[in-house]
Amino acid sequence: MTSGATYPTANGERFTLDVDMNADVPPYEDYQHTDHLDNFTVMEVVGKSRCHGMHLEGLTYPITPIGMHYLLIHYDVPEIDEKAYQLKVDGLVNNKLTLDMDNIRSRPKVTMPATMECCGNGRASQRWRLWAHVPWNHDAIGTAEWTGTPLRGVLEDAGLRDDAVEVLFTGRDKGIQGPPDGAEVQYFQRSLSVDYVMNSDNDVLLCYEINGQPLPPQHGFPLRLLVPGWLGATNVKWIDSIEATSTRLTERQMKWYSYAENDNDPNRIPCTFQQTRAMMIPPGIPDFLCRFRHLEETSAVELRGRAWAGGLRIEEVDVSIDGGKTWSPAKLDAPFGKWAWVGWSFIWKGVTPGQYTLRCRAKDERGNMSKDDDSVHDYYAMDITKPQYVDVNVYPKGTLAPLNKIPLPVQFPSL
Amino acid sequence: MTSGATYPTANGERFTLDVDMNADVPPYEDYQHTDHLDNFTVMEVVGKSRCHGMHLEGLTYPITPIGMHYLLIHYDVPEIDEKAYQLKVDGLVNNKLTLDMDNIRSRPKVTMPATMECCGNGRASQRWRLWAHVPWNHDAIGTAEWTGTPLRGVLEDAGLRDDAVEVLFTGRDKGIQGPPDGAEVQYFQRSLSVDYVMNSDNDVLLCYEINGQPLPPQHGFPLRLLVPGWLGATNVKWIDSIEATSTRLTERQMKWYSYAENDNDPNRIPCTFQQTRAMMIPPGIPDFLCRFRHLEETSAVELRGRAWAGGLRIEEVDVSIDGGKTWSPAKLDAPFGKWAWVGWSFIWKGVTPGQYTLRCRAKDERGNMSKDDDSVHDYYAMDITKPQYVDVNVYPKGTLAPLNKIPLPVQFPSL
Repeated sequence: MTSGATYPTANGERFTLDVDMNADVPPYEDYQHTDHLDNFTVMEVVGKSRCHGMHLEGLTYPITPIGMHYLLIHYDVPEIDEKAYQLKVDGLVNNKLTLDMDNIRSRPKVTMPATMECCGNGRASQRWRLWAHVPWNHDAIGTAEWTGTPLRGVLEDAGLRDDAVEVLFTGRDKGIQGPPDGAEVQYFQRSLSVDYVMNSDNDVLLCYEINGQPLPPQHGFPLRLLVPGWLGATNVKWIDSIEATSTRLTERQMKWYSYAENDNDPNRIPCTFQQTRAMMIPPGIPDFLCRFRHLEETSAVELRGRAWAGGLRIEEVDVSIDGGKTWSPAKLDAPFGKWAWVGWSFIWKGVTPGQYTLRCRAKDERGNMSKDDDSVHDYYAMDITKPQYVDVNVYPKGTLAPLNKIPLPVQFPSL
Repeated sequence: MTSGATYPTANGERFTLDVDMNADVPPYEDYQHTDHLDNFTVMEVVGKSRCHGMHLEGLTYPITPIGMHYLLIHYDVPEIDEKAYQLKVDGLVNNKLTLDMDNIRSRPKVTMPATMECCGNGRASQRWRLWAHVPWNHDAIGTAEWTGTPLRGVLEDAGLRDDAVEVLFTGRDKGIQGPPDGAEVQYFQRSLSVDYVMNSDNDVLLCYEINGQPLPPQHGFPLRLLVPGWLGATNVKWIDSIEATSTRLTERQMKWYSYAENDNDPNRIPCTFQQTRAMMIPPGIPDFLCRFRHLEETSAVELRGRAWAGGLRIEEVDVSIDGGKTWSPAKLDAPFGKWAWVGWSFIWKGVTPGQYTLRCRAKDERGNMSKDDDSVHDYYAMDITKPQYVDVNVYPKGTLAPLNKIPLPVQFPSL
């Protein structure tokens, strides 16, 4: 079947691509390669290949090592020559600016720890997902020590005009996105309100270092936005230009990184702050096949983790060892930064043989709490705060001695 | 259904775990969340979450930035205190050694670029896979500048006895692995022959730096093995001990990281050297949904990539723009290290509108060549050298101007 799809070109001409649009979709039968069915799509797997979570044992580090921090690459990582790089600041400003990296590094320098999280963190735990979105486990997180210069100072130098209400950030990463009947060529773009970025309490930075090192290419070299406490997609990487505008961007990444009932929902809400969530370091050791956790019986195990709420103070972290039926409060560490996660610990006492499902949840100073529901009205599966599940088998002492054999039936982890 | 599975403990007692072993396996119907079926399992997706590929545009860098290099985490990343760390060297040696990091760093220091590749690189392109193995795309690769001390010197100090024929490496990463009816508690272990490690031409190192920095936790901090040219699993991370033995290890990771017809194949061959392979930087820009590549028509496009063959000289790289029907030779760059990949380039001339599938393959000095077959007799899907596929749509000039709309029907990428 030849589609004969018609493609408009920039100069208004039309061009018909005469190819078989369906030839490369293999028949479903060709994919019967396992007895343990699920239906994660090849698109999800390909997406996941370009986006990786943090190993949850990395929650032990207050500052996540580079390479362990979660990473989402939306289009490609562009290769940028720092010497030739220029940041353009234009639109509704009195003085258009063109800044090179020497200029940017000569500006006031701020270093702060900030937790970052993907909008779709935990999506794999929802049964209803969009078929081509990254199936994140509860691991699309990380906390880095970011260094940069306040965006506010740059905009003050440019002189925002009174009619500027929004600031549009365009990355150098280019791709095509949109519904199959009319995808759009585009650079990655998000916008923020002038009110938000000009409020110095909000600490919006143009960053050029992570953990004391120049940004690696995949984190936005040479310059990226940091909107601390906001979800990952708002932190535009590889910034090409900043444009002051009189209207908010509602298309492209403002459309797709949003809470919406469907792809055309006029009442969509673009993703902003991270939600309220706690995560734990899975205790014990894993098995290779099913990624359950395995422990020996003991009088007590210290469970540890981190919690965050997009800059709000974490008021409470609760832990459940019975899959969420009952909850007990954890002990909170001292915070180490307004925008950074806070550590917590919980003593699980009387750990006796059996099977357990551990969970943890957080509550912030405004009473927001991690919630258990699948957000079925959330078309893009962005609204997920479902408390993490950690499946644990506890055995008698000595069971987990090296080279001991134990049966491990195939089990799906709790989702 | 309660399994009542019986677990032996180290002291010989038996313990019956009285839990419902199947309760957590959700019914297949619950997973009907998309029209575009595949059947990647939740295990594959969870595995992929802990293992990430290199972004192929990263082939532009001769030395892969940290965090872009592929990473496989088999069990957990252990947290190791460098000050308390000691490497034990024992077994069939005349002088048992206990070395701290100061001692190791005071030894002869070698820095070299080496390409690393996972045994299962490209596995997602096979229709026949083991259901819980990581579904790698063609991206489980990377080249780093590794720094360490030759293993040979350490073994010379220990004084290998004449009856030592193999050297066993044990990591600090502990887990459970094996068939469901008798998985085994274990530390990650691989062994190498004394002949191989004592041959200084083979450059086997105990490494403590990557790209001029201390190893990050996920790359084996504080000390890991580098067997240059060998597949990833042989490069044991977080080394706890090195033991000289009189027999080759045949169990555990020597069993599973092997070429075998089934899980009990007595003729299995443990994975050793990387195979012969070329990869290219996908040209043009991606679309978000299907990860096809999109280009405008032009007189010529330079395709670039890298090729490697486990330390053998690359004799030839060929490129196909018609899905592998016809092949043309690429131009090879000068090699920059015996164990590092070599760059190549190819001018694709007369790039006219239409749909193309690009591929590349390599041939080494011994005539080994990337091959197209699914290795269906390879139980673990380790024997994959299938040339990469890159699906490309070429459009008339102007089509890919920002904000231009083009239809993009859902298409699976070639596998």
